[in-house]
Amino acid sequence: MSVVSKERVSPGLKNKKGDNFSEWYNELVIAAGLADFAPIAGCMSIKPYGYSIWESIQFYFDKKIKETGHVNAYFPMFIPESLLKKEAEHFSGFVPEVAMIDKKGESGERYALRPTSETIICDSYSKWIRSWRDLPVKINQWCNIVRWETKATRLFLRTREFLWQECHTAHRTHKEAEQEAFWALNAYKDLMENQLAIAVMVGEKTKKERFAGALKTFTLESLMPDGKALQMGTSHDMGQNFSRPFKISFIDRDEKEKYVWQTSWGITTRLIGAIIMVHGDDKGLVMPPRIAPLQIVVIPIPFENEKKKIMSHTKKVTEKLNEDFMVKLDDRKGYSPGYKFNDWEMRGIPIRIEIGPREVKEKSVLIARRDNGEKKAVPMKAMKKTIEKTLEMMHKDMLKRSREDMKNRIKDAKNFTELEDAIRKKQMARIGWCGDSVCEDKIQEGTAATIRLIPLRKESVPSKCAVCNKKAKHVVYISRQY
Amino acid sequence: MSVVSKERVSPGLKNKKGDNFSEWYNELVIAAGLADFAPIAGCMSIKPYGYSIWESIQFYFDKKIKETGHVNAYFPMFIPESLLKKEAEHFSGFVPEVAMIDKKGESGERYALRPTSETIICDSYSKWIRSWRDLPVKINQWCNIVRWETKATRLFLRTREFLWQECHTAHRTHKEAEQEAFWALNAYKDLMENQLAIAVMVGEKTKKERFAGALKTFTLESLMPDGKALQMGTSHDMGQNFSRPFKISFIDRDEKEKYVWQTSWGITTRLIGAIIMVHGDDKGLVMPPRIAPLQIVVIPIPFENEKKKIMSHTKKVTEKLNEDFMVKLDDRKGYSPGYKFNDWEMRGIPIRIEIGPREVKEKSVLIARRDNGEKKAVPMKAMKKTIEKTLEMMHKDMLKRSREDMKNRIKDAKNFTELEDAIRKKQMARIGWCGDSVCEDKIQEGTAATIRLIPLRKESVPSKCAVCNKKAKHVVYISRQY
Repeated sequence: MSVVSKERVSPGLKNKKGDNFSEWYNELVIAAGLADFAPIAGCMSIKPYGYSIWESIQFYFDKKIKETGHVNAYFPMFIPESLLKKEAEHFSGFVPEVAMIDKKGESGERYALRPTSETIICDSYSKWIRSWRDLPVKINQWCNIVRWETKATRLFLRTREFLWQECHTAHRTHKEAEQEAFWALNAYKDLMENQLAIAVMVGEKTKKERFAGALKTFTLESLMPDGKALQMGTSHDMGQNFSRPFKISFIDRDEKEKYVWQTSWGITTRLIGAIIMVHGDDKGLVMPPRIAPLQIVVIPIPFENEKKKIMSHTKKVTEKLNEDFMVKLDDRKGYSPGYKFNDWEMRGIPIRIEIGPREVKEKSVLIARRDNGEKKAVPMKAMKKTIEKTLEMMHKDMLKRSREDMKNRIKDAKNFTELEDAIRKKQMARIGWCGDSVCEDKIQEGTAATIRLIPLRKESVPSKCAVCNKKAKHVVYISRQY
Repeated sequence: MSVVSKERVSPGLKNKKGDNFSEWYNELVIAAGLADFAPIAGCMSIKPYGYSIWESIQFYFDKKIKETGHVNAYFPMFIPESLLKKEAEHFSGFVPEVAMIDKKGESGERYALRPTSETIICDSYSKWIRSWRDLPVKINQWCNIVRWETKATRLFLRTREFLWQECHTAHRTHKEAEQEAFWALNAYKDLMENQLAIAVMVGEKTKKERFAGALKTFTLESLMPDGKALQMGTSHDMGQNFSRPFKISFIDRDEKEKYVWQTSWGITTRLIGAIIMVHGDDKGLVMPPRIAPLQIVVIPIPFENEKKKIMSHTKKVTEKLNEDFMVKLDDRKGYSPGYKFNDWEMRGIPIRIEIGPREVKEKSVLIARRDNGEKKAVPMKAMKKTIEKTLEMMHKDMLKRSREDMKNRIKDAKNFTELEDAIRKKQMARIGWCGDSVCEDKIQEGTAATIRLIPLRKESVPSKCAVCNKKAKHVVYISRQY
């Protein structure tokens, strides 16, 4: 973490999370050394500390997908325009955001930068898959993606280039593909809740909000403190919508030629934005402990005549901690302990350990928790256990707060007035919906909010549509969104 | 490795390594499932098995650079044309290969796809570095690179998009930067020889062959079986050639403003091409054991009346091996053992374990080494130790063969005729060189070969330049190149 420790950190944030959320977010990203604006409109440079959070997410999730038989590969970033056009809905869904390059194929074909890789991967699958023995194919890639956004861009949340993971699978039967799409959805939920400590709702997108070309799109949404939902990840049941135009067929056990059934699913560096928004506070970032690239910072509090003793105790403690945790000793000279406290609080390191004369005398350490500031003196013998417990408790408390915060801001709305009211109050509205896209459009026109999802879990459906008052088919959740 | 095991493999290679090397290489890449041609001229798709080799290299090298204080980050793929132009030599060096996109900045600025990231990273460093306390900065990124090659492309060896690692460092003093450039050079040599089992020569590039904008370029070159040298990696001492135009300055301890000293160094997916060319044989790939994503394949040889016993012994053996090695049990039905042998030989798995009636009876396994075909019956008790030894021996033998092969094909050439003769015979010529670029140009015009390097280790310098017969300044190595 050498680069991280050397960067200077602003002494505090000018903006408050509760006062001006948007400015607070922008200030925090820069102040905590997570990312920086790039000299390309709408692009960012992910700085080492920000990137180490992405690496932490990758490490956890890559292991998980490999354990379940998924493998990584790498497909070209360039997509011939003719391939993009093969699935009509897909093409029209991405056209406005596609960047093309000035080099062309021999036949004059134009090349796009991948806005997603379904088409280039389907083209390969059509060559690679021949028999039911070749199935399932479950190939993932970690790569950069380009979508030339016209909306206002935001560091981590919406940039014209971002990093992601996209997995593309092909199966013998639709049932198998559905199971895969749900597997991914659950794996994402586990990542978000059990690693990032962010509560998510899981559901299906309406036809209007669906991924371009998908049969069904499943989504994980979290509600940010400003009342906007953030789409945290999606998993698509593609049906045969791509396998037919791309001719990905196989000879099945019964010797008949059939088209494969496909899924695709992805998460992006936007998850780092979610961590910042959900957990951050007026002192800076608060890293969820299970995914924190750095769990503990040790800060000696030197007193004139006991400097040596304190440094020796500090080194002993750090060595011991290094056996079990990711630890940084901040022994920089010329910086006050107070400065260092602010510095590491800004970066959201879950636990700070302070060591002064008292800790030397009592052979103990002082443990401070980043999220609630709680301090505890702990004898060295009990240090490991106490830290483990503290990290676990911190994770649970953070997830609990996220859950409660989301729950508290979901409001049942029986009619359009109540719906408008909820959106105005930065809440998420829960309404009955007839299923008609006319009502869906009215919601967006009237409130600038959208149907985020139709929940997957069974919920009681209100009797009437909050827009048209006809019989409701679904219960849906509505809010503004990132 | 689920996808890998399911792909069908051609029963053998039509081309022989010794007969038609180039066709043999192309055939092997496809047959072993390493990569495939993409529907974009000059681009490839890296298939799961090929990508797993890259992941193996990443895993080893990423750990090594992190242990020495380097950190990862991610900079935009887009580079404003004005930044590219800031260092004149750099710009003119890359212009012919640069692809631009059709989206522009507000002021009409054009954006290039990174052919390398010096310029975009220097732009950030000029903002991030202020004081000697901020130094050194040692940031690496793993990413894709675009160079729109006009020469014939080859899978892994030259494609218009490829993957690499590029590290960019900034230092207080030139001495420190030089040390960093050499550290990288040695780290690469360790990777290539001690992991990939490929012998390399280490040296400096002539001014003509230098990286565009560098003060000095150090290179690692290996000699391929067709007599062409492959540049395996480079490390550049940038001096202040970038820090001056990009204004990357800092206030030093003496309170004076100074420009930083920089290095950059990189290796690419081309290393996979080197593994194929150096180690591959007429049966397919031979993976160097230390970097092999899969070390052992276990194949049961079922006999009619002992199938059950054989499968049970096979499972026991596989479980035991799984504790210490990366193992794959090939229990596919409907494929003969002979087919499976060919299949895994094509992919170059270092060790094959066969289990038939005899192994069941004797509680043993039959171990076959991929590189030389040696077979050995080993009691289960001695299995782990024998495999460890076999893998180590295999690595050493492979490196030794690579060293000897390179050594045997280096020829001293005293004059131009001997030089031409060596190049014609697919050898690498070692000559005295006056240091004049006129002679360097004559070599290239006359033989299509180039000076690959001026060796770093001390070597006796021939008295005269093999081209002009004047006094020689350096001893240099010359060959054709990839």
